[in-house]
Amino acid sequence: MITSPKNPRVKDVVRLRHGRHRSRQGRILIDGARELSRAIGAGVRLLEVFVCEELCTSDEERGLLARLPDCNAERLHVSRQVFEKLAFGDRAEGLLGVAETPQTTLDDIALPENPLVVVLERVEKPGNLGAVLRTADGAGVSAVVVADAAGDLYNPNAIRASLGTIFTMPVCAAERAEVLAWLRRHQLSIVAARVDGSVPYTKPDYRGPTAFVLGSEAKGLSGAWTGNDIIAVRLPMLGAADSLNVSATAAVLCYEALRQRARQM
Amino acid sequence: MITSPKNPRVKDVVRLRHGRHRSRQGRILIDGARELSRAIGAGVRLLEVFVCEELCTSDEERGLLARLPDCNAERLHVSRQVFEKLAFGDRAEGLLGVAETPQTTLDDIALPENPLVVVLERVEKPGNLGAVLRTADGAGVSAVVVADAAGDLYNPNAIRASLGTIFTMPVCAAERAEVLAWLRRHQLSIVAARVDGSVPYTKPDYRGPTAFVLGSEAKGLSGAWTGNDIIAVRLPMLGAADSLNVSATAAVLCYEALRQRARQM
Repeated sequence: MITSPKNPRVKDVVRLRHGRHRSRQGRILIDGARELSRAIGAGVRLLEVFVCEELCTSDEERGLLARLPDCNAERLHVSRQVFEKLAFGDRAEGLLGVAETPQTTLDDIALPENPLVVVLERVEKPGNLGAVLRTADGAGVSAVVVADAAGDLYNPNAIRASLGTIFTMPVCAAERAEVLAWLRRHQLSIVAARVDGSVPYTKPDYRGPTAFVLGSEAKGLSGAWTGNDIIAVRLPMLGAADSLNVSATAAVLCYEALRQRARQM
Repeated sequence: MITSPKNPRVKDVVRLRHGRHRSRQGRILIDGARELSRAIGAGVRLLEVFVCEELCTSDEERGLLARLPDCNAERLHVSRQVFEKLAFGDRAEGLLGVAETPQTTLDDIALPENPLVVVLERVEKPGNLGAVLRTADGAGVSAVVVADAAGDLYNPNAIRASLGTIFTMPVCAAERAEVLAWLRRHQLSIVAARVDGSVPYTKPDYRGPTAFVLGSEAKGLSGAWTGNDIIAVRLPMLGAADSLNVSATAAVLCYEALRQRARQM
């Protein structure tokens, strides 16, 4: 049992809270039993799991603890004091994993028939990426692609807000031009959400292969997402604020697509 | 100009970051120019404004600064060091207001013809309340009511996530039984969102007076929201997670109501 916060293994993991170290080491942190279960289920390569048995009190945590020997990850038992140093924010769930950073590229994404894709151009707040992933998961979206990711996708805030669906949902980052080419190659209708979009979002037909493109909160979508084959849609904004949060926009658009598709069946 | 972080006025304001002090003093903090503008526009009674001119660089901040003499609020100029002690998180916008806590009750809410109301049962995270308010604002919702608010409505996180729409949108907290009686008195169709709801959310007709009732993330809706006059709707959940974030659910429901209402016109 590791009881010293100065233990080098502990210090090494604490460093992974910084994106710079995650990118340098090619490793990410996964906090919490639910997130770890989803990562394991999705085939993410788990390297180490820090365990504080005293804090593993929920059924979910006890269940995962029992299944851990089946993973090839090294288990390190730590004291409560050490775990609290390792843990994310106010979370004290007793399980923290270190995993290889998933390296999904656009070419790895196998789109189903009639796909529904969400593209985020830039992501300023990792929590927003996580929130979009959670909504996209609920709506049965085929893949989420981040165009020009500013930071790393696997920020602990993104993992947390996604409830671990960042591992179960096909997700990758790529250059904007590559994403656009990929969407066209797969013959997806490209629907860009813009505050000044010319078409009400309920008007287009989303029953065929569709990609919704959403901009960053601060700047909206760049000029790259215009063209004859791109429809700019707007959501009604009837109040004081001039835009919705990106995850709210994603929720409205994805569930409108689902609604249209269900009607078809 | 106040330059000492130990100034009693400064210490008094720092205390207002805690809900306990806000409730005891009947005062709230409003961070940022946009939020302050919306509060002033909505008639919130501003008592003091702390100003750090050096940090007021945006047009929005300069504009508000010029309009401040029209408010009856006391202006206190502070040094950058002091302002950074007062400011919320990483925000350094140079303007922080202290206002009387708005005391809206259910009886104060004047519903328009054919209202659309959102009820939140409990709110665990202030950021979620703010996110729901921002979405409700966009969708032109008539009022947001919190049933059994655990904390105070005007947590700085709620104000921030709402972009200040917490001031422009009619919002109040009330006991659950009172809320239910109020909804019935106003003859609103009560539509409760539940993971195990019996009706797909796209099925009911939301073109008449409607209230959407949403539960807390951890526990869902309590048993109070069942009855012959309450429809339990569900959103399709097609992925790994078993629920959407409450603000995503609010977005989908409110915009579905808008869609139905627009079709009618």
